[in-house]
Amino acid sequence: MSSTGRLETFADGVFAIAITLLVLGIGLPARNAALWSALLAQWPALVAYVVSFLTIGIMWASHHQMFTVIGRSNMTFAFINVVFLMVVAFVPYPTEVLAQRIASGVDATGATFLYGAVMVGIAIMFNVIWGYASGGGGRLLRPGLDPLAVAAGAHGYRYGPPGYVLITLLAFVSPVLSLAGFAAFAVYWVLPKGGASD
Amino acid sequence: MSSTGRLETFADGVFAIAITLLVLGIGLPARNAALWSALLAQWPALVAYVVSFLTIGIMWASHHQMFTVIGRSNMTFAFINVVFLMVVAFVPYPTEVLAQRIASGVDATGATFLYGAVMVGIAIMFNVIWGYASGGGGRLLRPGLDPLAVAAGAHGYRYGPPGYVLITLLAFVSPVLSLAGFAAFAVYWVLPKGGASD
Amino acid sequence: MSSTGRLETFADGVFAIAITLLVLGIGLPARNAALWSALLAQWPALVAYVVSFLTIGIMWASHHQMFTVIGRSNMTFAFINVVFLMVVAFVPYPTEVLAQRIASGVDATGATFLYGAVMVGIAIMFNVIWGYASGGGGRLLRPGLDPLAVAAGAHGYRYGPPGYVLITLLAFVSPVLSLAGFAAFAVYWVLPKGGASD
Amino acid sequence: MSSTGRLETFADGVFAIAITLLVLGIGLPARNAALWSALLAQWPALVAYVVSFLTIGIMWASHHQMFTVIGRSNMTFAFINVVFLMVVAFVPYPTEVLAQRIASGVDATGATFLYGAVMVGIAIMFNVIWGYASGGGGRLLRPGLDPLAVAAGAHGYRYGPPGYVLITLLAFVSPVLSLAGFAAFAVYWVLPKGGASD
Repeated sequence: MSSTGRLETFADGVFAIAITLLVLGIGLPARNAALWSALLAQWPALVAYVVSFLTIGIMWASHHQMFTVIGRSNMTFAFINVVFLMVVAFVPYPTEVLAQRIASGVDATGATFLYGAVMVGIAIMFNVIWGYASGGGGRLLRPGLDPLAVAAGAHGYRYGPPGYVLITLLAFVSPVLSLAGFAAFAVYWVLPKGGASD
Repeated sequence: MSSTGRLETFADGVFAIAITLLVLGIGLPARNAALWSALLAQWPALVAYVVSFLTIGIMWASHHQMFTVIGRSNMTFAFINVVFLMVVAFVPYPTEVLAQRIASGVDATGATFLYGAVMVGIAIMFNVIWGYASGGGGRLLRPGLDPLAVAAGAHGYRYGPPGYVLITLLAFVSPVLSLAGFAAFAVYWVLPKGGASD
Repeated sequence: MSSTGRLETFADGVFAIAITLLVLGIGLPARNAALWSALLAQWPALVAYVVSFLTIGIMWASHHQMFTVIGRSNMTFAFINVVFLMVVAFVPYPTEVLAQRIASGVDATGATFLYGAVMVGIAIMFNVIWGYASGGGGRLLRPGLDPLAVAAGAHGYRYGPPGYVLITLLAFVSPVLSLAGFAAFAVYWVLPKGGASD
Repeated sequence: MSSTGRLETFADGVFAIAITLLVLGIGLPARNAALWSALLAQWPALVAYVVSFLTIGIMWASHHQMFTVIGRSNMTFAFINVVFLMVVAFVPYPTEVLAQRIASGVDATGATFLYGAVMVGIAIMFNVIWGYASGGGGRLLRPGLDPLAVAAGAHGYRYGPPGYVLITLLAFVSPVLSLAGFAAFAVYWVLPKGGASD
């Protein structure tokens, strides 16, 4: 058993790097192209940057919030978090693929499914992390927490996987609608919820 | 409500990564080109590296200084900071575009507007962060602060947006003059101000 | 003599960056290629991403665990850790080479040897770090530790170098078998061991 | 006046990222080239990786050691450190140029001068940081330090700039000799010195 300090530092690092690497996925305009039309043609990469940045940023904040009630760690818990971070750190890849395919129009729906599958994977891992930490009678939770407050705070994680599945299915209508849904879902997590203080 | 510790760690990470990624924007000279003339031809990328590095560095220092009086955080405040960091982490992109366009001479004024717009965006977000933290009767400020000292320290943030607009407009004269202005404005924030201790 | 705080922060940073840079090694599918067949053709890069991510992640956790009993640092110890991190930060390179060669079929066995050699190097450095910290009568260990518990915890490091050598030799059968071995070995470190609490 | 905590975190971040980005400068072998001969042909990039990694790593350790006696910060000191980090974060660029030119044989001496100039710049900045922190009667030093011990510890910084100039001049004999000198000089800083404890 050890404290969660270094695990949080490591997770913060991976979140911060993955979110900042997103900018590398926006290709430069051609050297001699007219600037504004070249930038306009890149709107899928710019919109995807905003959506993925907000999404990873809110996921960081949620991870941060979850660890306000988790007080201990062990090797298994570290491993679960490494798997979680493996999916988070992968986000720049489907982001770039989605931007490429919305721009080219080839298999854009499929690229949205790839993006959505990664989001569903992260949402599932949130539940796995929480399930392990709060399972076994609150195995890794800080002592002295109010069980009702803990349960209320945790309630939200369940909405993640079905929420991301539904938003992904919007790609059958339009990949851009799906992208807007991912952005809206990120903002949703920030809104104050009944029964839970922020 | 929670402390600002992990928010500052995350912000420091994004600042540190964005500033260090700037070097990836400087293209290598061609393999067999004469070295010094090839490096000289790249002066816009080298100058842009220096200007953006100083700018992000000073913004980091200002963010750091602001958090010496901000003592608490919540989910809304975390979200505002994520939006702020989204603009900061974007800086390598307009930096590279500006260097490319000063070198090629195509739409260099437009590229300076893009660069300036990002700077104005960051300066506005500084005011949004400060406005939220200090609003509502000092919602997130540390207790026991001297209100006059807080007000004096905060005064400077207002100069950011108009300052960056003016410097951007220098691009009508010359993009390089504008670039020098951005560097000078970064240094300006470091100078000791009357009425505020550092 | 100084505390290990900043050394751990620096090491966490290098681990977090090296692990997150792995995603840059997965090439984008061609712009107009059918998406799923293009992604399927990239399975070596995707599998190598998972294996190297898990491996670096577990190495981070092991390094973290080792430092729960190491309480002090000096310039020599910092240097040893820099050499250790030099090998860890190199991992994205053999990862990308291995994925490239499994995909192309040219010298895939050789690429597995390169990958394995880096793993053996990291495993040896774990023993060097531990040997220096625990040598000289526990030169850098926290005072008041139970010597038997320390010895039991350290026992595992010895298995690293021969283990990675054996897994590398599986490349004579098949590079993919070797890759599966690296993944399995990463998970092995997470399993609870007899005689050592986690 | 503020503590140096967040400045050290930011500096650690930039050091960790700059050192880990070095691996991106090693180009992949061609997809279908024989592996070992392709890797052998890349020895300048591999050697440059080791030399720059050790150099940045030791500079990190020296910066860390310097801050064991520096206890306070202000806006000017933050700015000086940002300029210092600007040169540190630039290291991947001359590293890649040097490797490119030793491999191609075109202007390798000039590339060594570029590399050496960056090293001299960092060494000068070490003296500027120390001069500002220890000047004005120990402006930013921790109170209660032994002045003789502080002076002895600081003595070494003076050797940096002339040392790096001399090693750079070895490029007139051979750029590779110079590169070996940079590696040896990095190790030199680690050796215990008479009159100074580590």
